Amino acid sequence: MTGDSLATGQRSLGDPSVTYPLWPPLTSGCPRTSTAELAYPVEVDYAYDRTPDDLFSRGRTRKAGLDRWASLLPPLAVPTLGEGGTPLVEIGDGVYLKDESRNPTWSHKDRLNRCAVSAAVGVEAEGVVVASSGNHGASAAAFAARAGLRCVVLASAGAPPAVRSFVNAYGAVVLPVPWESRWPLMRQIVDRLGYHPVSNLTVTHTGHAFGPEGYKTIAYEIFTDIGVPAAVFMPVGYGELLFGVWKGFAELRRLGLAQRVPRMYACEPAAGGPLAAAVRQGLPAAVVPVGPTSAYGIACAVGGHRGLVAIRESGGEALLVSDEEMAAAQAELSRQGMWTELSGAAGLAGLRRHGVVDGPVVCISTSSGFKDLAVGSHGPEAVEPTWDAVSRRLRSAGIST
Amino acid sequence: MTGDSLATGQRSLGDPSVTYPLWPPLTSGCPRTSTAELAYPVEVDYAYDRTPDDLFSRGRTRKAGLDRWASLLPPLAVPTLGEGGTPLVEIGDGVYLKDESRNPTWSHKDRLNRCAVSAAVGVEAEGVVVASSGNHGASAAAFAARAGLRCVVLASAGAPPAVRSFVNAYGAVVLPVPWESRWPLMRQIVDRLGYHPVSNLTVTHTGHAFGPEGYKTIAYEIFTDIGVPAAVFMPVGYGELLFGVWKGFAELRRLGLAQRVPRMYACEPAAGGPLAAAVRQGLPAAVVPVGPTSAYGIACAVGGHRGLVAIRESGGEALLVSDEEMAAAQAELSRQGMWTELSGAAGLAGLRRHGVVDGPVVCISTSSGFKDLAVGSHGPEAVEPTWDAVSRRLRSAGIST
Repeated sequence: MTGDSLATGQRSLGDPSVTYPLWPPLTSGCPRTSTAELAYPVEVDYAYDRTPDDLFSRGRTRKAGLDRWASLLPPLAVPTLGEGGTPLVEIGDGVYLKDESRNPTWSHKDRLNRCAVSAAVGVEAEGVVVASSGNHGASAAAFAARAGLRCVVLASAGAPPAVRSFVNAYGAVVLPVPWESRWPLMRQIVDRLGYHPVSNLTVTHTGHAFGPEGYKTIAYEIFTDIGVPAAVFMPVGYGELLFGVWKGFAELRRLGLAQRVPRMYACEPAAGGPLAAAVRQGLPAAVVPVGPTSAYGIACAVGGHRGLVAIRESGGEALLVSDEEMAAAQAELSRQGMWTELSGAAGLAGLRRHGVVDGPVVCISTSSGFKDLAVGSHGPEAVEPTWDAVSRRLRSAGIST
Repeated sequence: MTGDSLATGQRSLGDPSVTYPLWPPLTSGCPRTSTAELAYPVEVDYAYDRTPDDLFSRGRTRKAGLDRWASLLPPLAVPTLGEGGTPLVEIGDGVYLKDESRNPTWSHKDRLNRCAVSAAVGVEAEGVVVASSGNHGASAAAFAARAGLRCVVLASAGAPPAVRSFVNAYGAVVLPVPWESRWPLMRQIVDRLGYHPVSNLTVTHTGHAFGPEGYKTIAYEIFTDIGVPAAVFMPVGYGELLFGVWKGFAELRRLGLAQRVPRMYACEPAAGGPLAAAVRQGLPAAVVPVGPTSAYGIACAVGGHRGLVAIRESGGEALLVSDEEMAAAQAELSRQGMWTELSGAAGLAGLRRHGVVDGPVVCISTSSGFKDLAVGSHGPEAVEPTWDAVSRRLRSAGIST
């Protein structure tokens, strides 16, 4: 069942000397180092010495997306939807945008779910269950459909109408329940029905053991496109993306292909920011209150330890960005022809807050503008179809007629 | 201004012996062969004998998307948004889906607009103007933004709310006007303001001279992925995609890289179908009444000559598919984890109507489900957060609890 994968086992982030076999994937973190107040995630270990020499050479294989990197990923049991392989678009002054809206369900989450739903296939689960109102839920539903597994999505009621249609599109059973009921119900679906959880079940975030491995491929792709950048700025909710991208670069260094890893900048909404709180307070992970924000995709109360590892090991930083800063970054990208979700623009917002970085910088844009709260709520007014009326409208937009 | 492009001039589809210089791009078709009732488009000619030997070799360049094929495209003056390079996803029984929802604005139109907006830059136009309520308008707006050009979108009023937000996102001036007023107003914006038109202005469809060249890259990508398939099925509105994909394969044959071209199957909504009417009546192009259909992206009254060339030269066929057949194809793809626009599923609907083809078949899916009329109009009902209520809902979905 491992195919090309060189995965050998699981290793605790709480204590790296604590290891587990590869199966079953630990969906509630590391049982030996976690406590009632703090849960430590695990990561996947590989037989790095058996990595194919030409894995990072251009044109070595016809395989695209995640399949190209199968040796350094957990076993990929679900057939590909063509996830990964997203473009790196130059936006000026040495800044590149990694456009993750170009995935099968138009967000970065597809890289995680290819791995996490493959784990569900690996343990012969009855189905998968996920708590999410947006990108993660839709992506899990898509890969469950691809795998021929049932999927239950515990959604909270507040998702935008277009996103509701999106989550509903892949044949999952979507159950809108109050926000705080999502986790207890997920636990019951896991325990009673034998469904495999692909989102978090623990007191601080651990999530899925295999999922964040999928995000390593973002680092591999950046490396094959432009080498190692000076810094990577990205939206951060639970820190799985942050950890995965950092780990990918750390592996490249371990394999002797890179000299260093980029500084990792976590960009959280100022309304919450559990990772920034953990950094500030010197904690392994933190839980914070969350105020009002439109960046619903990354507005998390509960943080996890993965993000802290990435920041500490890379010399990075946890930045807080306001909704206004994210909206300004979103507008900056629109003026370059790219429409991102508000949350998705947090990486560029973080870079603008931080100021110029010496050397190439990558901002990860996680998702498409179609997922925003405001979608469909406004549009331009109709105009009378005469040249007079049209030219008045054009002039008011600054076009001389 | 031509960069790597080997483009040499323009050639009439009405009479291939009629040629024009490359500049200016003919935005109203071939003046010499067109009549008051029928307009013939032009296509772009290249110095094929100077094509780089290794153009179709894997790994020859770091350049991705359309830039990889710059020698066989018109000059690409607008910087890339990472358009093209979309995945070919196996869906079983030798059928592949070319997922064009993976472009910068999540439809195939980005391939056309990179070329058409580049032409506007080439002629130093004041801006671009387009008549479209959906994918084409948003894509033109995105590339105009990328080029630093103004963009006017003449939209008709009936677009879905999410699509209205989409078209509006890139800073274009969006003018919702009655459907029949779009073309006369576009003409005035072209004539009075010097804007470059990137959609059609003629009595039968000719559209932009350079735009459909961008679609050739779909054929190049399919060829480098799996060679020459037996057939390609795709949604057809004005037939620009159909022509471009056919031309790409015809060029591969001309260059001695392929022995044959695939049969091209045009899949139009049964509510309209100007190409099927032209084939049936033996006309170069036709205009038909359009009945009610939800496939608004391809519901065209006015056909063009390009589609006819592709069908005739490839031994293909013009198929009509009902809304029900498109909805069934859309559902089939959802069950495989891919959410397409209703129009976008017409290719697979056509294949299912036609029946099994001997040899690999590619269906082109043009766009994302977010663009559909029904988006946001329905969603699952909230459920009481108790195990009893949840398990009742699960059982009604066929999950035993």
